[in-house]
Amino acid sequence: MPSGSRLQFELLHEDGAARRGVVHTPHGSIQTPVFMPVGTRASVKGLTTDQLQRLGPNGLGPEIILNNTYHLMLRPGVDLVEKLGGVHKFMGWDRAVLTDSGGFQLFSLASIRKIREEGVEFRSHIDGSPYFLSPESSVQIQTRMGVDIAMAFDECPAYGLSHAEVEKSMLLTHRWAKRSLEARTTSALFGIVQGGVHTDLRKRSVEEIASLHVNGGGFDGVAIGGVSVGEPKQEMFEVVDFTAPLLPRDRPRYLMGVGTPEDLVNGVAAGIDMFDCVMPTRNARNGTLFTSSGKVLIKNAGFASDEGPLDPRCGCVTCTTVSRAYLRHLYVNDEIAASVYNTIHNVSFYLDLMRSIRDAVASNSFGLFRQEFLSRVASGEAA
Amino acid sequence: MPSGSRLQFELLHEDGAARRGVVHTPHGSIQTPVFMPVGTRASVKGLTTDQLQRLGPNGLGPEIILNNTYHLMLRPGVDLVEKLGGVHKFMGWDRAVLTDSGGFQLFSLASIRKIREEGVEFRSHIDGSPYFLSPESSVQIQTRMGVDIAMAFDECPAYGLSHAEVEKSMLLTHRWAKRSLEARTTSALFGIVQGGVHTDLRKRSVEEIASLHVNGGGFDGVAIGGVSVGEPKQEMFEVVDFTAPLLPRDRPRYLMGVGTPEDLVNGVAAGIDMFDCVMPTRNARNGTLFTSSGKVLIKNAGFASDEGPLDPRCGCVTCTTVSRAYLRHLYVNDEIAASVYNTIHNVSFYLDLMRSIRDAVASNSFGLFRQEFLSRVASGEAA
Repeated sequence: MPSGSRLQFELLHEDGAARRGVVHTPHGSIQTPVFMPVGTRASVKGLTTDQLQRLGPNGLGPEIILNNTYHLMLRPGVDLVEKLGGVHKFMGWDRAVLTDSGGFQLFSLASIRKIREEGVEFRSHIDGSPYFLSPESSVQIQTRMGVDIAMAFDECPAYGLSHAEVEKSMLLTHRWAKRSLEARTTSALFGIVQGGVHTDLRKRSVEEIASLHVNGGGFDGVAIGGVSVGEPKQEMFEVVDFTAPLLPRDRPRYLMGVGTPEDLVNGVAAGIDMFDCVMPTRNARNGTLFTSSGKVLIKNAGFASDEGPLDPRCGCVTCTTVSRAYLRHLYVNDEIAASVYNTIHNVSFYLDLMRSIRDAVASNSFGLFRQEFLSRVASGEAA
Repeated sequence: MPSGSRLQFELLHEDGAARRGVVHTPHGSIQTPVFMPVGTRASVKGLTTDQLQRLGPNGLGPEIILNNTYHLMLRPGVDLVEKLGGVHKFMGWDRAVLTDSGGFQLFSLASIRKIREEGVEFRSHIDGSPYFLSPESSVQIQTRMGVDIAMAFDECPAYGLSHAEVEKSMLLTHRWAKRSLEARTTSALFGIVQGGVHTDLRKRSVEEIASLHVNGGGFDGVAIGGVSVGEPKQEMFEVVDFTAPLLPRDRPRYLMGVGTPEDLVNGVAAGIDMFDCVMPTRNARNGTLFTSSGKVLIKNAGFASDEGPLDPRCGCVTCTTVSRAYLRHLYVNDEIAASVYNTIHNVSFYLDLMRSIRDAVASNSFGLFRQEFLSRVASGEAA
């Protein structure tokens, strides 16, 4: 199977539906379940690559990050990234990189567009200049940037469309999936399941994407796309809980754009291996911090004279070197260091959470871990 | 002499007028000549304290930084800083801290003010609330914040005033200097020489400030204030070259608010031991970078595909991990990491320059060092 040469997945352990595994890539191995910090423009906002590499448990940093094809193709452009040796060399990052296909940003950010069978015409949200993305060009761009894992080009329908509209969009995604797979060369490629909130469509989409083979090779992993696009949290988890168990057992399962710490715990319970989300980095810049006892809004006046660490259970640079009072001071004064300290903590918190989840799955205690985590967060949020 | 218990200065070597020394403070020793990075609101903009501690030659970081009394007294306020254990504990910094007296910011930032013999009434530039600063309250505030070196409260006259106006202001500064010295308790205290661009006034001011003694103790160091306030560079150095040699030989000499790398080299040549300036940090955020061959404006299109390091002679994280192309990419995309990488480099460059200066003075080769440095920078700027 051709996919073996691009990426190898080992399923090490199952604890109920929760899975513990490892993904081997050209840029190192990834312990799963894994959270991928988002580095939109080849930068995890607020951090140098050097800082990023030392975040999280034991200062080892994340094993994989996500970059956005849409943003990088506009600036600095794929020609330049390729000329400079690819995204890894560009940002000084020697571990794995996954890129999205550009589809999601294109449907949410690009100002003008025309969707055809062939692909999508759109204009840059930065300067209005025209671009065209197709399954073939998206995979080619991701490959030229040298990423470890590329994503198939899909259409991501908005929440609230009719069953017929979602079905029509899904069928286009399926045709694009086949063309994406045919365009795969050196980077590993994940397929994307669509179907909105409709379980019958999700089931059809899994069957189509999981069974697609080109020259004997299928997708190297399968993602659930089209969630976290505005639907209520309960509807999202109905989709995830329904869809995840249908996904191939021998390939990584990736839930795109999700989510809160609770979402990650619940996603793992459904059998998901990989996650990405802007939440830890974006919330950090907005002063919303995740802690072992729930969210902290650091601007609150109650923290003005709080000498304690942000999260006494966290070992990150932020929690071990400065106080909540100092973090509030930096935030209310709009200091750049506020974003830096907050991002260090939030990303570390996510990485540490994933390590705890992996440990719990490996020791067959994930059910108890989940129960305790959700009750601790729930009581913290209410406090 | 009481000053001995607060701060001890050892003059180790002289090479012409250039001096090599060491200042012993309660928070460690400072090798001079020294540049103090500016941490306005107890934060060197763009850096965590952890990052700051690892900047510069051998990753040892600066031995002293400057904080601004004016900014900290407005937010978070001296009561809070004191309650939280002082500025060191507040920002997680265990090395020396010098604060200005608040005078400079008060005369340049505060919106409404009334200058009386007693002190200055002003309104916060943030919310208009009323404050009052006097020699006594300024020294007391700095002391309550736990700083190693406090500055006397002075009036900083604008450039372009008449000789009579500058003289009147200087005499007020002298009366305030005496009151500042009388208010000294645990922090070391530096006096400030004023007198504008008038050499006769500068001479009188040095004589007054250097000879001031209260209960047998004089100022722990003497600063040249009122420069770099809009006067042409040549006039500034006429003042510095005239004034520095008049300052006491056995106490640290501090040139306030100066300056460019060339200014530091020329200041050392005049006999200055200590410098501070927002230039490396502010310019970093504006994309103006100091290198061994002159200034680099990183936004320039010519750097878009430049794979080389920002400064091949620099060993900082920025120069050893990413390219000029990546730095330009971050800057034009307004990424937070642009400010972080640029600040890391500019501050490291200043710290490294000071180390080179100290080495040159110690080996009696400062004259040659200065000549080569100025000609290299001049040719780089022209390129």
